Amino acid sequence: MQINVGIIGLGTVGCGTYEVLRRNAELISQRAGCDIRVTRVATANPDKVRPVQFDKCIVSSDVDALLNDPEIHIVAELVGGVEPALDYVLRAIQNKKSVVTANKELIAKCGTDIMTAAEKAGVDFFFEGSVGGGIPLIKPLRESLAGNRVQQLMGIVNGTTNYILTAMTREGRDFDEVLAEAQKLGYAETDPTADVDGFDATYKLAILADVAFGTRVTEADIYREGIRHIGKRDIEYAAELGYVIKLIALGRHHEDGELELRVHPALLPKDHPLASVSDAFNAVLVKGDAVGDVMFYGRGAGMEPTGSAVVGDIIEAARNIRVNATGLARHEPLHPTKIRDFAEVETRFCIRMQVADQPGVLARIAAIFGDKGVSLESIVQKKADGGAAEIFWMTHRTSQRALARSLGEFNRLDIVREVSSVLRVEGE
Amino acid sequence: MQINVGIIGLGTVGCGTYEVLRRNAELISQRAGCDIRVTRVATANPDKVRPVQFDKCIVSSDVDALLNDPEIHIVAELVGGVEPALDYVLRAIQNKKSVVTANKELIAKCGTDIMTAAEKAGVDFFFEGSVGGGIPLIKPLRESLAGNRVQQLMGIVNGTTNYILTAMTREGRDFDEVLAEAQKLGYAETDPTADVDGFDATYKLAILADVAFGTRVTEADIYREGIRHIGKRDIEYAAELGYVIKLIALGRHHEDGELELRVHPALLPKDHPLASVSDAFNAVLVKGDAVGDVMFYGRGAGMEPTGSAVVGDIIEAARNIRVNATGLARHEPLHPTKIRDFAEVETRFCIRMQVADQPGVLARIAAIFGDKGVSLESIVQKKADGGAAEIFWMTHRTSQRALARSLGEFNRLDIVREVSSVLRVEGE
Repeated sequence: MQINVGIIGLGTVGCGTYEVLRRNAELISQRAGCDIRVTRVATANPDKVRPVQFDKCIVSSDVDALLNDPEIHIVAELVGGVEPALDYVLRAIQNKKSVVTANKELIAKCGTDIMTAAEKAGVDFFFEGSVGGGIPLIKPLRESLAGNRVQQLMGIVNGTTNYILTAMTREGRDFDEVLAEAQKLGYAETDPTADVDGFDATYKLAILADVAFGTRVTEADIYREGIRHIGKRDIEYAAELGYVIKLIALGRHHEDGELELRVHPALLPKDHPLASVSDAFNAVLVKGDAVGDVMFYGRGAGMEPTGSAVVGDIIEAARNIRVNATGLARHEPLHPTKIRDFAEVETRFCIRMQVADQPGVLARIAAIFGDKGVSLESIVQKKADGGAAEIFWMTHRTSQRALARSLGEFNRLDIVREVSSVLRVEGE
Repeated sequence: MQINVGIIGLGTVGCGTYEVLRRNAELISQRAGCDIRVTRVATANPDKVRPVQFDKCIVSSDVDALLNDPEIHIVAELVGGVEPALDYVLRAIQNKKSVVTANKELIAKCGTDIMTAAEKAGVDFFFEGSVGGGIPLIKPLRESLAGNRVQQLMGIVNGTTNYILTAMTREGRDFDEVLAEAQKLGYAETDPTADVDGFDATYKLAILADVAFGTRVTEADIYREGIRHIGKRDIEYAAELGYVIKLIALGRHHEDGELELRVHPALLPKDHPLASVSDAFNAVLVKGDAVGDVMFYGRGAGMEPTGSAVVGDIIEAARNIRVNATGLARHEPLHPTKIRDFAEVETRFCIRMQVADQPGVLARIAAIFGDKGVSLESIVQKKADGGAAEIFWMTHRTSQRALARSLGEFNRLDIVREVSSVLRVEGE
């Protein structure tokens, strides 16, 4: 038996998928129990030079021909973005084709609708490549860990920001400098917003939270904060206290049923499993009530790593077609869940501020923290230039609300020249 | 629809499986798309006090009644060892029941026969819990990473030895002392042979190698060496040079098609992903040709972690029964593979020896290494007591054969009082 695949989109992931299917064709056909062949590729620029060799006869710009080809069993949507990807995916499903994608924005925004359509049409819809590149995450969460009530997941899911933070830490440099270099090297986009402002990580957390907590999460449910405001001074203070700074995506299922969801930079203790995840690597740490802590680690992006995930999904879809069992991977009904009010979310904080270098300042600020119910854990004070001093405060667990109240007071206080950064502490 | 499960064996894993199925029953039935209920439990000692609450009516010592109960769809064999577990598993399969187990010795020794029987009977046979406790390994390797040619896998798969080595490293103590304490605390068995001499890790490597390399591996194919001979001096020298000592299970698929398989202690660089896997945690690092390095990390044993894996398999088997798709997970045909002659296997080595404390000794020993084709990378020499000196050599990559020849020479040399340990270096 031969299963035919149509690939839409020939960017990095499209090329990786084609190359892996071509190179490992024999091994893949053994594992799938059938031959898997790419019979059509649709791309806007068929003649563009690409990093892998293609059979030119199968490449065209005609997406309709691909979607309407009755010989094609599986469509791999590797265009990215919501439109026209959503249209392609829904038409493929209507035409009774199983669909595989690595499109995180599409899943985060329209995942439920697509899954419903796929279930109705009796076809498979898989998206392992949408989070963590080639790292197996969706399937292990949904299947191997299905006996667990997932209590928490915490991940480093954006390679660009992890690369930037790693370089800032290693080389003691500031954000702008490292970003510019990352852009030159191709590790960051010309418009880096999606990565450095945390949008990409937010899409990925929405996908993971859906799967792990069995609930419907949208972007709007997730608190989001990027890494632009991280200074090298923050990294230095953190290191002094035994921490590293990472952009984390965190989902926590509270005992009362509420869900806490946030993407922001955080201090992690140096011996935390995520602390040593460097450069463009990704990792997700899952805490299940039965399994305890489990971590998945690997390359979070790239041509062949993400291609590996897409091909894994294609093999699964092909096996299901072969044994006539498509569309049976019942998706757990998504329960509406109350998202915890962000003002109530509790963490430890560290606050870096510039204060007037005069007697009694430290005591006055500490008193304000105390008045607002923020209990302090440790303080590092350094002499800065121009009559100002820099203080790095670390608090015990406190709510966002209590912290915001303290910060509001400081704004009215002329001894506090500037609150330079406010960061959260996790993983303890 | 209700799927009925029979559990054989009520040790640690049996109790964990029962408890997870009971506690998360509602969530599990949503995910499986059907109710899953344990209707019979068979154990040699039904009246023994156990760490979890049981419905006494379903517990008995009658294994036959369980195996012959036509109402039971899935049997979880959690007895351990080869007999009578093999008999139970084969009879369950004959009776058209899907079978789930966490029995590493059984899979390593009889896995192929059982899979063949299951395929013939059209039932499922799953064994995720046999390696790495609750860490998803078998399924991700077989499914998510199915598009990859696995080039290497390296794992810390035995919790007891990792606990012992971690304690030796942290506390600067010797093996016997730490083992005795681990036995007292229940982390090591009264007869610790299976763990400390590497048998357990060998079974697990055989299972992982089957799945990852698509070949039939038996215990006899794997070089095995335990940790009894590791001294605290080895750990100290390793630390000085930037390494930690771990018991690793390693499988490598060479370009020429030969497979290298070994279980032994090794020095790993401190920044290697496996180096920070401490205490009873396990981790497996897989290198695929497309995905690159992927690591899976978590608790390698324990009641609920292993129970989590068994329950994951039960849910999968139940889903397949519900949708009438059992026995379809085609197992890749296992190809016979040539195992690389161990004498030809190349690694870096470090050798600790006691030598006469007199001029010219170092040069004479270095000359012998050179004569036998062993090239040296670094040397640490320390003065020891009683007119002897201790030397810690580290070599460049060399074959087992060349090293063995050097060691043979040293035996004939009276300036070498003792070769205290020979360790391999990996992960670079």
